[in-house]
Parts: sequence; structure tokens; C-alpha cells
Amino acid sequence: MDRESALELLGNKQFFKLKSELQEMNPADIAALVEEMYGSDEFDEKNLIMLYRILPKELAAETFTYMESDKQMMLINAFSDKELRDVIDELYLDDTVDMIEEMPANLVSRILKNTDSETRKQINELLNYPKDSAGSVMTTEFVYLRRDITVKEAFEQIRKIGLVKETVYTCYVISTHRRLVGIVTVLDMLVADEDTLIKDIMETNVISVNTHDDREDVAKTMSKYDFAAIPVVDNEDRMVGIITFDDAMDVLQEENTEDFAKMAAVVPAEDGYFRTSVFDHAKSRIPWLLILMLSATLTGWISSQFEAQIALIPMLVSFMPMIMGTGGNCGSQSSTLIIRGMALEEIRLKDFFKVVFKEFRVAILCAVTLAVVNGLRVLIVYKDVSLALVIALSLIGTVVIAKLVGAALPMLAKALHLDPAIMANPLISTVVDSCSLLIYFSVASAILHI
Amino acid sequence: MDRESALELLGNKQFFKLKSELQEMNPADIAALVEEMYGSDEFDEKNLIMLYRILPKELAAETFTYMESDKQMMLINAFSDKELRDVIDELYLDDTVDMIEEMPANLVSRILKNTDSETRKQINELLNYPKDSAGSVMTTEFVYLRRDITVKEAFEQIRKIGLVKETVYTCYVISTHRRLVGIVTVLDMLVADEDTLIKDIMETNVISVNTHDDREDVAKTMSKYDFAAIPVVDNEDRMVGIITFDDAMDVLQEENTEDFAKMAAVVPAEDGYFRTSVFDHAKSRIPWLLILMLSATLTGWISSQFEAQIALIPMLVSFMPMIMGTGGNCGSQSSTLIIRGMALEEIRLKDFFKVVFKEFRVAILCAVTLAVVNGLRVLIVYKDVSLALVIALSLIGTVVIAKLVGAALPMLAKALHLDPAIMANPLISTVVDSCSLLIYFSVASAILHI
Repeated sequence: MDRESALELLGNKQFFKLKSELQEMNPADIAALVEEMYGSDEFDEKNLIMLYRILPKELAAETFTYMESDKQMMLINAFSDKELRDVIDELYLDDTVDMIEEMPANLVSRILKNTDSETRKQINELLNYPKDSAGSVMTTEFVYLRRDITVKEAFEQIRKIGLVKETVYTCYVISTHRRLVGIVTVLDMLVADEDTLIKDIMETNVISVNTHDDREDVAKTMSKYDFAAIPVVDNEDRMVGIITFDDAMDVLQEENTEDFAKMAAVVPAEDGYFRTSVFDHAKSRIPWLLILMLSATLTGWISSQFEAQIALIPMLVSFMPMIMGTGGNCGSQSSTLIIRGMALEEIRLKDFFKVVFKEFRVAILCAVTLAVVNGLRVLIVYKDVSLALVIALSLIGTVVIAKLVGAALPMLAKALHLDPAIMANPLISTVVDSCSLLIYFSVASAILHI
Repeated sequence: MDRESALELLGNKQFFKLKSELQEMNPADIAALVEEMYGSDEFDEKNLIMLYRILPKELAAETFTYMESDKQMMLINAFSDKELRDVIDELYLDDTVDMIEEMPANLVSRILKNTDSETRKQINELLNYPKDSAGSVMTTEFVYLRRDITVKEAFEQIRKIGLVKETVYTCYVISTHRRLVGIVTVLDMLVADEDTLIKDIMETNVISVNTHDDREDVAKTMSKYDFAAIPVVDNEDRMVGIITFDDAMDVLQEENTEDFAKMAAVVPAEDGYFRTSVFDHAKSRIPWLLILMLSATLTGWISSQFEAQIALIPMLVSFMPMIMGTGGNCGSQSSTLIIRGMALEEIRLKDFFKVVFKEFRVAILCAVTLAVVNGLRVLIVYKDVSLALVIALSLIGTVVIAKLVGAALPMLAKALHLDPAIMANPLISTVVDSCSLLIYFSVASAILHI
């Protein structure tokens, strides 16, 4: 169903038809439809609540988890305590926690008031994990089994509790002290005899992560091993939760978005583009603009040292943008590839010399090509061999320096435990711009005898 | 086990100890260990083959799938036909196809010769899907059920064939014409009575994709709905395969890597950093460097139009890098955020005016801040009100234009069905650089009366 027909059904109060059409849809699509409808004038908070109440209880709760937090807040404000409890019962614990993190304090306390004491305790624990930790993305809803039960008993447990767990297909075998001793999959149990003991078919060589591990590292680990879920243990090695593949995928996408922002000299924002206010956008962009602008003072100072030469041959100025631009592009090509390679763990610190040597050879090939093309262009347009030589030699020097700086600085930043994506940016552009101008004017002075 | 102790055990021919240590490891880690060892002088092709043969058959085959393709080739070259068949039997079909795509023709034909005719047919079909299509990442190994069987019969089928299927937890219900009519999860079956018919518990509202859909769109769909697997149908609506979450994760990471490359003005390479040769690196970087270098001719031409003014006040040149650099940074901030927003489908074409208006307001805040800071700096350093005014006004004009161009061009590219990440790059830098210089020299001419 598209936005127009949904609005029409709602406008004509054809709720029965609307309900039957919505029931055929996936909750993620209903939530997307609500977002679209919300943009139109005919759809307001009242409509949102009405539409929500049309949905069958379970579908309503699932749709709720896919909505933006502002819509969630409107709904919670309108909910009776009974409705609120219904939703929270349907939500997975980690989704509840995600939701609570976005809510103002009065709604949070209302939500917590409507959960049972066990859930409330778990929510509070999850809320206390640092923002980028594994604990903050895990869920405490997993199936655990004792090692001495049979496959048949295990299946009975799964039947009883499976529907409220985020995944049942990997079950975790824990000791009396809640220590993780093995994992067993539903497939293992399906192919085993029903009287087999869990401890006889469990895999004891288990890879787990700690609640305080970085969530990005955990997501990468899961991607490396193709895990659908990974167990999370606390500092005493007790099993406290699992992280599922869908959350790992979201983490990887968010971290990528952060890296894009950093490389564009933007302080990463918490929210999406539209949900970040104009003021917050400006606040996240101004710091690097200021730093980069003031560091360009150095470049300005260098070019001011050559004012005498410029006054003699003003045409020199017209090649400045090209030389500096090419240097900048070469540097950012190298730094981006290296930073990405390090993020994907393909490039490691011990590869430093291998990388620098590779970039050096790539730089030579690029430099010679650019120098020949532009040298010939200058020769043809200006019919001036010396000028063509100045441009060609400056390009070679600039390209090589830019690529070496672009390769080395991100790795040095990493060696100093700084974020390569952030630190490399201003340093590279300042260093490369300065080097480009120094090379250009020095070569020009030498060859043109000025 | 780390690299050093593995090399030592291998060197001392302590194969029994080596084997027992390797057996405790995960195949992905063994493959990583092999890659590390391969870097050392003491480890050659012979060691690789020896180490491989130490491993138990199943672990060996699993480890094989995680190896780099050059190691895979060495091993295949050394394999007997029997060993080759063992490996191929253990591999999932999509992994076999991935491997074949990297191999020279003689190895491909040897691999195909050692598969049974049904597998060979499926491999050939998978090889024929276009590179970025859903068909190219799917596997044909999934569990399908008839709708008229009972849960008990379904479990018997899963027990029989489950171990060679990539996932059994979602089963696909197909009609006699291989049309997908529903899906049923193992959990649904576990909680149902064993005499229930599959058709009574299957979900008929199934989201599927076509073999020719773009693999990135498919991965995004899976991430949106939190699917562990998605069914793939052909043009006649027959079910031909599934795509699993681990491959979707890989696709998203690869596409992100491509986007990083494009934004750094690099033609995306097929392979990782080290596996791409120096020559191929140069080939993927030179095109954009050339285009950007030659388009900077326009900027050069603009500055040459102001040679008279420059000759009068050579100091004007020293602010050029700062003005152009700030313009470039502002433009790439906007374009990167917009391109990423479009890639994540948060920003759509219909949001054009909303985005441009938002960027305009952000630009005003950034522009005023930068203008005030740098205007004051110039006033203090040069004690020249007119010059400070020139710099401040030029910055305001440059920042606003750069942000509007940076916001609008990627969206226009998308509207013209061009890749925003590629098209935006050269155009934005050319337009922004030219505008910056025009604004700067015009403002300077007007205020300084030159």
C-alpha cells in the first residue's frame, strides 16, 4: 500500500479496509509508510495513534520497534499503562534499551515503572555499559542450557521459552556459576538422538567477547567468522548476553558512516542527516573548517615569501591551483586507501615499509604520467620549454611527496594510538599544500632564474 | 597458537603437537595464521601443503575457504583429484563459485572435472550471473519443503540433508512448479504439534528478490528487515537460491570500500590493497588525477584574468590557498554527508529543497563564524580594515556557494541516474574552486579599488 491510498483510507475512515491491508505488510514497511505519511499535512499525531490502534497487538508492537524515536515518544505519551506494557512485553530487551536511550527522563521512568522488576534490573544494567561497548549492543535474551540435560529436554525448554528469545538456533551451555562452557546449535540437536546429553554434542571451543570490548571490533569478529550471534561474558567470565548479526550489521554501517564523516572533516553526529539540527550540523563542521583555515595560513606565508618572483612573472600564480590541487588529490587518494585498509584490518602497522614502498612506486607512475601530459599541454599552449619543464618537474615532486605523506601519516597516527581518520586530515593537507608550493616556487626560481 | 610457535613446531617436525594445537583453532584463525606464516622466509609452498595435510579432512576444507586465492591455487595445484573432490564436497556452492572466479582457466576446468554433473551445472549457472547481481552472491543450497507434509516429516528431511545446507533454520515451501509459496522457520516447527501440516504454519507473506537485483540493494533490504537469509527467485518466479546474512555483510563492506575509493577520486579496484599490483593501483588513480588536473586549468585561467590586480598587490596571492581550501573543505563536507545519506536511503531525491535549504542555513552559520575569526586575525596581523573586510566577505560568499554546490550536485547526479559518488567529485571541485577565486578577486577589486 502506498502513502496516498493509506491517507485516503484513513481520511474516509475506512478502518476495516486499512487494517486488512496493513496486516499484509511487514512491520518495517508499515513503519516506513508512517514516516512518509507523517510528512503530509493530512496526517498528525492523532492519526498516528489511530493507525497504531488499528493494528493487531503483536504487529503493532513490532512496527513500534522500527519507528523513529519522535513517533515512539508520541505513541508512548498517548498509551495507557496497559498498552505500554503490551509493547514492552513484545520488544526485545536490547530494542527497549535503544528506545530508552533516546527518551526524555519522564518517559523513561514511565517505561521502567511498567516493566517487571527483573526486566527493570536488566535494562538498568544494559544502560550502564559505555556507549561503544559490546555491552551496549547486546541483548540478555538468549537460550541457556545445562550440560547434563538431554536433547529432548533441551527442545522442551526451547519450545517453552523460545518465542521470547532473540535467537534460539544457537544455545549456550552454562555451568552452575553461569560460566559459559559450550555452545550447541539446534541443527546439532536435530541430527542427534533425543537421549544424547548436551555435553556430548556441545562445541567447547567457544569464541566469546567481553562486555567492555569495542562494539566495532566485535562486529568485525562476527563478520570474520560468519557468526549469526556471539556470546558476551563479563570480567568474571560469566555469560551475560549475546550480540546478534543484525545488530552487528548496524554497528558496521554506523562505524562506516562515522568514517565517512571524519574523512570529510566533519565531527561525526549521533543522528542521521535530517534528525540533526541546523545548529548541530554547524557545530560538527566548524571545528575542522577553522583548524584547516588557520593552518592554511602557513601555506599563505610560504607563497608570500615568493612575492618578488610573482611580481616578476604574475603568470606563475595561474598554475598554483593546479599544483596544489593535484598534490591534495594525490595525498587523499593514498590516505583514504590506507585508512580504509587499516579499518578492514588488511593493512597493519608492521606493513609500514611495504606500504610506503608500494606508494612510492605508484607515485612514480602517476607523477610521470601527469608530468608528461601537463608538460606537453603547457609547451603547446605557451610555446615555452622552460615553463613546461617547471610544471613537469613540480608535478613530479609534488605527486611523490603527497603520496608518501598520505601513506605515512595515517599509519603514524595509528602507531600513536590516535584515530587515523581524524588526525590524518588536517596534517596531510597542511603538509602537502606547503610542500607543493615550496617545490613549485623553488623549481620555478631555479629554472627561470628569478 | 602464534606464528613463531607454529613455525617452530613445523621446523622441528613436531607434526603431532602441531596437529593437536591446530585442531583447537577456528578455521578462520588457521587461515589467518597461514597468511602470517607465509610472510616469513622459513615458510614456503611445501610447508603450506604439509600443514594443510596435517589437518583433519573437514577442518582442512573449512580452512581452505578462508584462505587467500593465491594460497588456494598453490594447494589445488598440489592436490590429488581425490583431495580436490574432498574439498569441493565440503565447500558451500557459493564459496566454490567465489573461488573459481579468481582462478586461471586450467584450474577451473580441473575443479569442474572433479564435481558431479548436478553441481557442475549449478556452478555454471551461478558463474553466469552479472557481477553485481543477487544471483552472483546467492547459494543454491537451501532446504525446501512441500506444503502438504507434516512438521514431523519436515524434521526428518532436515535431519537427512541439513548438514550440507548453508542454513536450515528458515525453510522454503515451494509448489510443484518450484514457485515459492511460503516460508517456515525451525522455531515455528518446534513450537507446533508434530502432526501439523507445513501449509498451516507457513508464513505466506514472503519478501523475495530477483536474481538480477543489485546485490547492494538486496543486502540493504536484508539489513532493513533484519533477515538472516532472503529467498532469490528468477524471472519466472521460481525459487533458485538464498542469500545469507554473512554474504550480505560482506557485500555491504565491499560497497562501502568502493564508496570510500570513489570519494578519494580512485577508480575502485577489485581486490584489496596488497593484492592490487603497483601498476593496477596507478591505473585506478591516474584517470581522476588527470581529469582533476586538467579541469584546474579553468581555475588557472580565472586567476590569470586578475594578473593586473595581483601585480599591484602581490599579497593577494597569499590568501588564495586559504580561500580555495576552505571552499573545497566546505563543499566536500556537504557532498560527503549527502552522498552517504543517499547511500543509506535516508536522503531521497524528493528531499532536494529540504536539503538545499538546510545546507543554506548551516552554511550561513559556518560562514559567519569563519569570516569573523579570520577577519579579526587579518585585522590584528595586518592592521588593515579593507583587507580584513575582503577576506571576511570572500569567505562568506565562498562557504555559502561551496555548501550549496556540494549539496545540489550529488542529488542532480542521482536524478540523472549517474553515480553521485563519482560524478560529484570533479564537478564540485572545479565549480567550487572557480567560484572561490571569482568571488575573492571580485570582492578584492571592488573594496581595494584595483
